[in-house]
Amino acid sequence: MRAVELKGKKVVLIDQTKLPDRLKTLECLTVEDVARAIEGMKIRGAPAVGIAGAMGLAIAALGSKGKTKREILKDLKRAAARLRRTRPTGADLFTRLERVVGVAERAKGSAEEVRRAVVMEVKCIVREVDETDRTLGTIGAKLIRDNDTVLTHCNAGWLATGGGYGTALAAVRMAKEEGKRVRVIATETRPLLQGARLTAWELKRDGINVTVITDNMVGYCLSNRMVDLVMVGADRILKDGHVINKIGTYTIAVAAKRHRIPFYVVAPLSTFDPKSEVREVKIEERDRREIEEIFGKRVLPRGVKTLNPAFDITPPDLVTAIVTERGIVYPPFRKKIPEILRTP
Amino acid sequence: MRAVELKGKKVVLIDQTKLPDRLKTLECLTVEDVARAIEGMKIRGAPAVGIAGAMGLAIAALGSKGKTKREILKDLKRAAARLRRTRPTGADLFTRLERVVGVAERAKGSAEEVRRAVVMEVKCIVREVDETDRTLGTIGAKLIRDNDTVLTHCNAGWLATGGGYGTALAAVRMAKEEGKRVRVIATETRPLLQGARLTAWELKRDGINVTVITDNMVGYCLSNRMVDLVMVGADRILKDGHVINKIGTYTIAVAAKRHRIPFYVVAPLSTFDPKSEVREVKIEERDRREIEEIFGKRVLPRGVKTLNPAFDITPPDLVTAIVTERGIVYPPFRKKIPEILRTP
Repeated sequence: MRAVELKGKKVVLIDQTKLPDRLKTLECLTVEDVARAIEGMKIRGAPAVGIAGAMGLAIAALGSKGKTKREILKDLKRAAARLRRTRPTGADLFTRLERVVGVAERAKGSAEEVRRAVVMEVKCIVREVDETDRTLGTIGAKLIRDNDTVLTHCNAGWLATGGGYGTALAAVRMAKEEGKRVRVIATETRPLLQGARLTAWELKRDGINVTVITDNMVGYCLSNRMVDLVMVGADRILKDGHVINKIGTYTIAVAAKRHRIPFYVVAPLSTFDPKSEVREVKIEERDRREIEEIFGKRVLPRGVKTLNPAFDITPPDLVTAIVTERGIVYPPFRKKIPEILRTP
Repeated sequence: MRAVELKGKKVVLIDQTKLPDRLKTLECLTVEDVARAIEGMKIRGAPAVGIAGAMGLAIAALGSKGKTKREILKDLKRAAARLRRTRPTGADLFTRLERVVGVAERAKGSAEEVRRAVVMEVKCIVREVDETDRTLGTIGAKLIRDNDTVLTHCNAGWLATGGGYGTALAAVRMAKEEGKRVRVIATETRPLLQGARLTAWELKRDGINVTVITDNMVGYCLSNRMVDLVMVGADRILKDGHVINKIGTYTIAVAAKRHRIPFYVVAPLSTFDPKSEVREVKIEERDRREIEEIFGKRVLPRGVKTLNPAFDITPPDLVTAIVTERGIVYPPFRKKIPEILRTP
């Protein structure tokens, strides 16, 4: 099972807003369908959103009525512009869109050859993601000892990558496959409850021991020595080691630091943004109804204000190490991240 | 309006589980009714639970068929034992029950005189609480400057004390009455959402500018300099300055420390426990359904474990000062708290 797949001219994805109640798939026939699925968080997780975006471009290429390379490119770029507007914070979407558009630009010959190049590239990305998930898991598992309890936040599993294992949860899965006893404490992750709904569902299906807590129990668990290490995914990682991830990550990192508990980030290279400075990162502010209502029932009195930033920024001094498919990156990140990004 | 009142032989309380949808009162005719209202968190907040407990004893005394002081005392002590079992962590309940039972024990004469002494003492406690709320507010307001934003957690308003102002929110109210512009950021406070449901409701009614966030947005707000000070209530304060309060308080205190933002606790002396050591404090673990379900809808896949500690413990090194009705207590708490408790 994969979070998102390209099937012919359709993008088929698991509607993650319906889990764990129902395992329901959604068929996207147009770029607009894909864009709305991303905006509505039917598919979420920075790497999975990146793949969905790339697949959106495949739909655009296949559906384009263009008869020349130039005409197809025009449709592709329009599609890429629409997909870019869906969510502003995660890096993988931009990485993937740029890569696919680049391939189309460099493709030689007819409209048909551009179409073929785009679809080939998307299939190549899908294979890479699968391999990357496995590599992240194998490398990340080295940081987990027998009998460890891992605290994780939001969902960094295969639902979040589109691959077979995930990022932080890939490490947990591989540790278990290696015969280590491993337990997970998952924060429920308000407002959309990805930890309670998705991480618990993924791990339960794999027979991994998982305990769900509310987000505000993190300090309690750390101070009661219930956690050996923190492992989370990321939506964007800057070249100096700033980690942008689901809202709440920063607070966990601060608490982990106080208790000298390692704070690990597991992410593919597609999540790295080698260009931006921290002040340039746009933190998505989502709809206030996500805070005002739970399951359609209003929680707040009318007229009360809310905030709904979807992400926060964890500075490098709180990050113990970052696991990538090219190995584990330790501080100083400002030196080591550019090195690993340059490695061929 | 008061959170809980003694009306004749009944305890009448606002059912806080129904707010902010409905402002509904609940009549408790027996000690068992009061105990269940406390257990079901229809009345909550350590000081308010303390008053409700005292009123439960008034009901027990008035309803007792005892014809002698000894017989009444027996009924009172049985009632006190039942009420003590409702919730193990907050100190005010124990403080109040001891006080009322003590008065009954020291009362001279007939059963009728014991009854009268008990009811008088309960009424005296109610008057004291009202006065204490106001004093806490007046003293606490000194810590709030014009244009400050106060971050608060859970509900530390009049719903939580049974008085007219509350503890932390009393300070906010008094600051406003003094003409200061003050804003509040209230954490929603999972699992029972007292911040979103109760604090937002109280402040909105008073025309105070309030913004609700999910618990995991605390670090984001602090790092973006949206908060000038943190102010919370308490369920129990130990003589060395350990503060036991709603789950999540500790994590907020850790984050506040990193950002050098003052962390103030506002609580009446009835919340202080001069005897226990921190290892002796029992943290209430509540029903797993509070985590598994939201508004009766199941969130978690079946078979997934949960934790549900209702409180956590903030150590003295994270507490900037404690506001009591006898003044502001600064560190070293181990020296200063016993001093203020001894002050006549």
